Amino acid sequence: MSERVYNFSAGPAVLPEAVLAEAQRDLMALPGVGASVLEISHRSADFSAILAQTTADLRTLLNVPSGYQVLFLQGGSRLQFSMVPMNLLGEHGQTADYVLTGSWGKKALEEARREGKTQVAWDGAETGYDRLPSDEALALSDDAAYVHITTNETIEGVQFATEPEVGDRPLVADMSSDFLSRPIPVDRYGLIYACAQKNAGPAGVTVVIVRDDLLARAPDGLPGMLLYRNHAENNSCYNTPPTFGIYLVGLVAKWLLHEQGGLDGIDQRNRDKAALLYRVIDESNGFYRGHARPADRSLMNVTFRLPDADLEAQFLRQAKEHQLHALKGHRSVGGIRASIYNAMPPEGVDRLSSFMQEFAAQHGS
Amino acid sequence: MSERVYNFSAGPAVLPEAVLAEAQRDLMALPGVGASVLEISHRSADFSAILAQTTADLRTLLNVPSGYQVLFLQGGSRLQFSMVPMNLLGEHGQTADYVLTGSWGKKALEEARREGKTQVAWDGAETGYDRLPSDEALALSDDAAYVHITTNETIEGVQFATEPEVGDRPLVADMSSDFLSRPIPVDRYGLIYACAQKNAGPAGVTVVIVRDDLLARAPDGLPGMLLYRNHAENNSCYNTPPTFGIYLVGLVAKWLLHEQGGLDGIDQRNRDKAALLYRVIDESNGFYRGHARPADRSLMNVTFRLPDADLEAQFLRQAKEHQLHALKGHRSVGGIRASIYNAMPPEGVDRLSSFMQEFAAQHGS
Repeated sequence: MSERVYNFSAGPAVLPEAVLAEAQRDLMALPGVGASVLEISHRSADFSAILAQTTADLRTLLNVPSGYQVLFLQGGSRLQFSMVPMNLLGEHGQTADYVLTGSWGKKALEEARREGKTQVAWDGAETGYDRLPSDEALALSDDAAYVHITTNETIEGVQFATEPEVGDRPLVADMSSDFLSRPIPVDRYGLIYACAQKNAGPAGVTVVIVRDDLLARAPDGLPGMLLYRNHAENNSCYNTPPTFGIYLVGLVAKWLLHEQGGLDGIDQRNRDKAALLYRVIDESNGFYRGHARPADRSLMNVTFRLPDADLEAQFLRQAKEHQLHALKGHRSVGGIRASIYNAMPPEGVDRLSSFMQEFAAQHGS
Repeated sequence: MSERVYNFSAGPAVLPEAVLAEAQRDLMALPGVGASVLEISHRSADFSAILAQTTADLRTLLNVPSGYQVLFLQGGSRLQFSMVPMNLLGEHGQTADYVLTGSWGKKALEEARREGKTQVAWDGAETGYDRLPSDEALALSDDAAYVHITTNETIEGVQFATEPEVGDRPLVADMSSDFLSRPIPVDRYGLIYACAQKNAGPAGVTVVIVRDDLLARAPDGLPGMLLYRNHAENNSCYNTPPTFGIYLVGLVAKWLLHEQGGLDGIDQRNRDKAALLYRVIDESNGFYRGHARPADRSLMNVTFRLPDADLEAQFLRQAKEHQLHALKGHRSVGGIRASIYNAMPPEGVDRLSSFMQEFAAQHGS
């Protein structure tokens, strides 16, 4: 096998080696099946068992209460940006409230505006999306159809540590980049969606967790594929689902449950990894400047700048020589971004923090 | 590695062993990349090269003329059932004509009806979708926005051998189940779509080939993910595409180009495989009754009945003992269906035809 580097990509992102090894072992034929998981019908008993186990393991990991459906869809979060308002705004002229804490929330709002009445409940633009709102700062509609948040903004590197208080309005969360990275109280949410390619699996599969009562809201006439109800009623087999993606999400869930101590275990590892990098930033005498306000820092995406663009380019080049890859910040903001999702091993973060210290010592004033 | 059976699944379906072997070899790390193709950013140079090569190979295989875009989307044909009318019916009150030759065409029409004015140009219901229309039988609208056909109906097993004559109306084809199985004159079509999980790759990636002038038709206000234009302008990276699926489509395209003699080569193999099974049916003295009229038979899905349901159940059980799997007809019609896509090796068809002959000899009157 080729040597593996430390891959800090923001997504698609590193997967657990144990998951890749099992997928590789069985790629020609699943044990006892005689065909690859890539080749079997989504309606076969073999795939149905994979789907059922994956669903059950996600329910266990997240402690999903009864009264919620777990769905596997396609189209990424981008399609959810549209499906959420199409299904939940209904036909009663209600308003959807959007809390904007970064680039992805803004894109979600942009799509929602095409579908119905929206309102910005808070916008962090003034300080460059470096912080989260207090509960008091949220201007919520009295009859909001839902309140939309992005739990972790990958580009700016800010993350909600707890749920904002929204009363009895359904809270809808784009959890794409911190799904399965920590325990969450699912019952605080009406709907959660997450593309898999950060913590949960490969690109091409999107997990949706939705409360039963919200399934009924959708107006008649939506395209069949965009109606959550159709997917719920057909156990994610309304059409052919992304079978291999679901299989990999299942392997990741199994790895979390049985090798990482569940979400409590992975949460502790994630906190330790992030603390290490933020400490290097905070102790660099200003050589590294974190983007997010310390209280609102993401445990998933550590974003920072160096004194100038030349040094950033040099940092990226030298990092690569240390097998530290994909550290470039998002093209819209520049700088450096270290994405340290569940599957980034502590050894990768150790190596990055050592490199950062050496680089600062060489180039700091 | 586990022993592989002969898998006649209608989709997800058998993949070429050479493709699976290469994917397996490189699953932990692509050569020279240091990370799995499942883990790299869709905007990385490494993935961009895969996307470019896959696109180029598909263009070569299908001889796609300039003036057409090749796109990789998500959501399967089911989402195309909606995207086609949303994008092509435009806002001018035009009519979309649907030619119904089986179950999938009917589902496509059902979705189109939600989006605008439609008309049934021909419906094979009267004879149980066992045949195709002559050109003269098509009742086309004068100003049809497009004419929709399903080139191969997997459930009934009927397939267009050539394009129907539709004048200068754009021909739109659901080619999900015979895409890449034979050469086609792309310039006869306005838009072609195909989910990959029959001949082209795994579930979760959908190929769309669309003529440039049709991209401009879409009305304002469509959800961003459902606008072909967005995908065309962003080279299929409007959002994170299903990267692993695209990689596998690329491996399949390479296999077709370099090991199968392109689409001419695979077409001949497919014709030979189908001829073998249809000969067994035709020479069985009525023991096997093919569903489709001989002139309109599918080269991809060979559908037939036995004298009664008990014999069909016995046939399926015994076939499985011969390592001949997934031969059950679609739940909506019953009977037997042998899907013999590109990657079904001739040896599998040989074994099935021998088994069919033996079974008929034992149970025929």
